[in-house]
Amino acid sequence: MRLKHIKGAEETVKSCKYVVQEPKNYKGQFHTLFKNNNPIHIEIGMGKGNFIIQMALKYPHINFIGIEKYDSVLVKAITKLEALQLENVRLLRMDATYIETIFEKEIDVIYLNFSDPWPKGRHEKRRLTSPNFLQKYDSIFKEKKNIILKTDNRHLFEYSIISLTEYDYHIEEISLDLHSDTIENIETEYEIKFTSLGYPIYRIKVSK
Amino acid sequence: MRLKHIKGAEETVKSCKYVVQEPKNYKGQFHTLFKNNNPIHIEIGMGKGNFIIQMALKYPHINFIGIEKYDSVLVKAITKLEALQLENVRLLRMDATYIETIFEKEIDVIYLNFSDPWPKGRHEKRRLTSPNFLQKYDSIFKEKKNIILKTDNRHLFEYSIISLTEYDYHIEEISLDLHSDTIENIETEYEIKFTSLGYPIYRIKVSK
Repeated sequence: MRLKHIKGAEETVKSCKYVVQEPKNYKGQFHTLFKNNNPIHIEIGMGKGNFIIQMALKYPHINFIGIEKYDSVLVKAITKLEALQLENVRLLRMDATYIETIFEKEIDVIYLNFSDPWPKGRHEKRRLTSPNFLQKYDSIFKEKKNIILKTDNRHLFEYSIISLTEYDYHIEEISLDLHSDTIENIETEYEIKFTSLGYPIYRIKVSK
Repeated sequence: MRLKHIKGAEETVKSCKYVVQEPKNYKGQFHTLFKNNNPIHIEIGMGKGNFIIQMALKYPHINFIGIEKYDSVLVKAITKLEALQLENVRLLRMDATYIETIFEKEIDVIYLNFSDPWPKGRHEKRRLTSPNFLQKYDSIFKEKKNIILKTDNRHLFEYSIISLTEYDYHIEEISLDLHSDTIENIETEYEIKFTSLGYPIYRIKVSK
């Protein structure tokens, strides 16, 4: 995503009630933020928040946490969230590299939508489906591990199929052209733009 | 494939030296037909034989066996083989359903090219990557089990990825658009026709 500098973004993020300011303080206790024991689903790299906000509206009995590295993107999600006053959503401004220091045995589902493909071999460890990350996820899942990935990037998808199955995930669903199938699908901003160009969207749902 | 009746096809097949007339007699001993101990690769559903003949020309130290159910298709391969006098190819006229009664611990690689997708759920058992067939293949492989599948059928490919990995095959290579990649590829008749229409060809190489 191309990033623009947005004036005041940092301040907006720091003062927003939907943004968890000291996430480490909630490790293993994120349910206390929501004041219930509903399942917690996270999206790593939530961008402008379209997906997570639509999901939260559709599934009020699931708690959603969106993770995003950049203030300038996060503020877009904040604006929408403040208008909707959604109580089952929280946002974290952080780099996913440290994810295992933030959560512990409390996540039910991880969504990876249109993640950075990091095409160069030497950057493999940065891909969110590399063994490096899969290992980090192990300790954050509550019981059953569920990952749902969508991408338009063929090479990232090919890589992810191999990486996930080698890490003993079972494939529950796979689509090589999501928009031709009848699977329920909430689109991201990026997806809407990309699909309109006629390219296929790939999706995989795995568990272990 | 649309089948035409070809006059004299049955007689041609029955009298051709490249067609193994009583394959059960060679169970576990197919290497004696080739008079060497080179690896044996088979193609189930070889159609008109373009793939297997090109492979045999390219790899003289591998023995190839093509399996095909229909005389009217097999005669096309016979014509090419007799012109080329290829000693590392044999053909079997049979239904793959009985494959485990023909071979025993002697096959190195199985190729499945553009197999019938059998789209209806009640026909799942007829798909060549169903657990039903994977179980039959178990006893025909020599040591390491290798399957290489190509198809233009998205649903058959999605099904096969799940079926093969659930059957504990490891994915060695996967391509969701073979003709955009630089993998070595010998095309089948069907593939040449299909690719010219701009559709992607899917390919997976698995082993266990």
